[in-house]
Amino acid sequence: MKNRDKNRARGRVGTPNELELLRKIKRSARLGGQNRQNFGIQLGIGDDAALWRPQRGHETVLTTDWFLEGRHFLRNSHPPEAVGWKCLARAVSDVAAMGGEPRCCLVSMGLPPDCARGWLDQYLKGLSRAARKFDCPLAGGDTTRFKAILINVSVVGEVKSGTAVKRSGACVGDRIFVSGRLGEAELGLGFLRKGIAPSAESALLQRHLYPIPRIALGSWLASNRLATAMMDLSDGLSSDLARLCSASGTGARIFAEKLPFSGGAFARRFDIKQRFDAALHGGDDYELLFCVKRNQVARIPRRFAGVELAEIGEVTARTGIALIDSFGNQSLLEAAGWDPFRK
Amino acid sequence: MKNRDKNRARGRVGTPNELELLRKIKRSARLGGQNRQNFGIQLGIGDDAALWRPQRGHETVLTTDWFLEGRHFLRNSHPPEAVGWKCLARAVSDVAAMGGEPRCCLVSMGLPPDCARGWLDQYLKGLSRAARKFDCPLAGGDTTRFKAILINVSVVGEVKSGTAVKRSGACVGDRIFVSGRLGEAELGLGFLRKGIAPSAESALLQRHLYPIPRIALGSWLASNRLATAMMDLSDGLSSDLARLCSASGTGARIFAEKLPFSGGAFARRFDIKQRFDAALHGGDDYELLFCVKRNQVARIPRRFAGVELAEIGEVTARTGIALIDSFGNQSLLEAAGWDPFRK
Repeated sequence: MKNRDKNRARGRVGTPNELELLRKIKRSARLGGQNRQNFGIQLGIGDDAALWRPQRGHETVLTTDWFLEGRHFLRNSHPPEAVGWKCLARAVSDVAAMGGEPRCCLVSMGLPPDCARGWLDQYLKGLSRAARKFDCPLAGGDTTRFKAILINVSVVGEVKSGTAVKRSGACVGDRIFVSGRLGEAELGLGFLRKGIAPSAESALLQRHLYPIPRIALGSWLASNRLATAMMDLSDGLSSDLARLCSASGTGARIFAEKLPFSGGAFARRFDIKQRFDAALHGGDDYELLFCVKRNQVARIPRRFAGVELAEIGEVTARTGIALIDSFGNQSLLEAAGWDPFRK
Repeated sequence: MKNRDKNRARGRVGTPNELELLRKIKRSARLGGQNRQNFGIQLGIGDDAALWRPQRGHETVLTTDWFLEGRHFLRNSHPPEAVGWKCLARAVSDVAAMGGEPRCCLVSMGLPPDCARGWLDQYLKGLSRAARKFDCPLAGGDTTRFKAILINVSVVGEVKSGTAVKRSGACVGDRIFVSGRLGEAELGLGFLRKGIAPSAESALLQRHLYPIPRIALGSWLASNRLATAMMDLSDGLSSDLARLCSASGTGARIFAEKLPFSGGAFARRFDIKQRFDAALHGGDDYELLFCVKRNQVARIPRRFAGVELAEIGEVTARTGIALIDSFGNQSLLEAAGWDPFRK
């Protein structure tokens, strides 16, 4: 976080607001980095750049993600704390999807003047909670004023050399797995749309607001060389599986009745068709989609660290994604990735 | 660069425009990374994250910078090729300011639909030219649609462990140096404001549009342990020197007649007061400001790789920046960092 704001007026460098902002951000960064000898961060916020010490025998995993007002969140519907949590969770999920572990992050913010206090405090609270939870402290960033809230998060992670899992490694016959229950974040967004206030009661809403990237699972699959291909489910199974297959030069067959969709008390407010569609096309779950060689399937547990792992289909030579219903009928699953703010 | 766009409509994943965009970006990335075994990039654009192999005995330098339409550039005044060049040059300059060398970058773009072709082509041309020039290929990013052009660039660099130069190391008695001629980018912006078209004739305009970060100089100063403190001049000497002094717990004294301001034919269209003010307060030069122990001053050449190095003053115990004029009169230099788009 550079100590500058490009739009300051002559002679007004360091107005209380700017200093306050930087102080707040530094405080959040510290909260995120107090364990494990600062995670290799040699120099954090306040200089031209941050310094970080990579571990021997590891490759660096690099990813960056937008989180923009009106596009990825709505200022008046999404609690600022959830915005802070989710902007980091999404980027960390990309690191998990390679089998890596997050090490530190750079967070750039564009802030309208009226967000510089109350909104920002809550946002930083969420960001710093996520940074602690994911062991991913803030190492730097850039802050400026803008008419909409702009967030860009880059995460630096690590993976043991040669163990990262790409999208492109799936082979014909591999079994396809997903973690968790699919479509829950989308159902949660349904609650948000209906104006139901965020509350601890609604597990689905929590899934939309506070997604948890599957870091330990991704890392375990990679270090044990169990996954041939992997990615995170950010845009919905139908779109993301199509991408994995396209990168691998394969197709896939998935079984409708094996899809782990939501059955909890809150989910039942939605009919089965809605829940099934959400599982196929709903975005923002941040679960892992991965492929496993047939002879390794027995090594995949039913649950990993409390998260269900479901075998949902297999990789095929024929391109396209075939969906098999419970009567054995086959249809082509169209990629229908979904955007929460589409009208 | 993830192969996704959050706002696609159901069933319209991979419309020609999106694929075209990704193809264009991939092409630019390749252009940026064709020398020196791909600069350690093990996996580039197209997966969940990029993979990069750090060198032994080095620390990783991390920085991120906004470059936003209406704030850091104007769509109708700044050639898109210059926007592409400058967004990377600015972030690379932060790595140079630590004494590091850039290795790769992540570029996130928000694009209005009407920029997706002509503007983007020129922008990518400039970005890819800069990536080649700075040995800093594109490893990844994130692309989305937005009403204004948003650019965020993160650069990953390296520096030999323990040699990075911070802002905070200046000691009383150290001599203060700057590279290049100060204020030229600001004078160049003056031309742009007057509507003088970009042309190779105007060296000043080039300085505003196509700044060159001082990578080799920064790296040489760091690896030879010649600089006690260093930063890049992005906001103007009066602001940036105040920041270096504040980080070091010192003040400084600088001599007006030693300031290397612009004297070229084009610069003379501005009067001496304008040129002097631009040297003190003008932003966007991306020259290096550094401090050198008195007994090391003889080791600093007058020119380094064609760039002048000027000793402009010294570090003092008394806080604040004193400006000494040619009669020996002393005045307090107010930090007056300048924003090109302030009204």
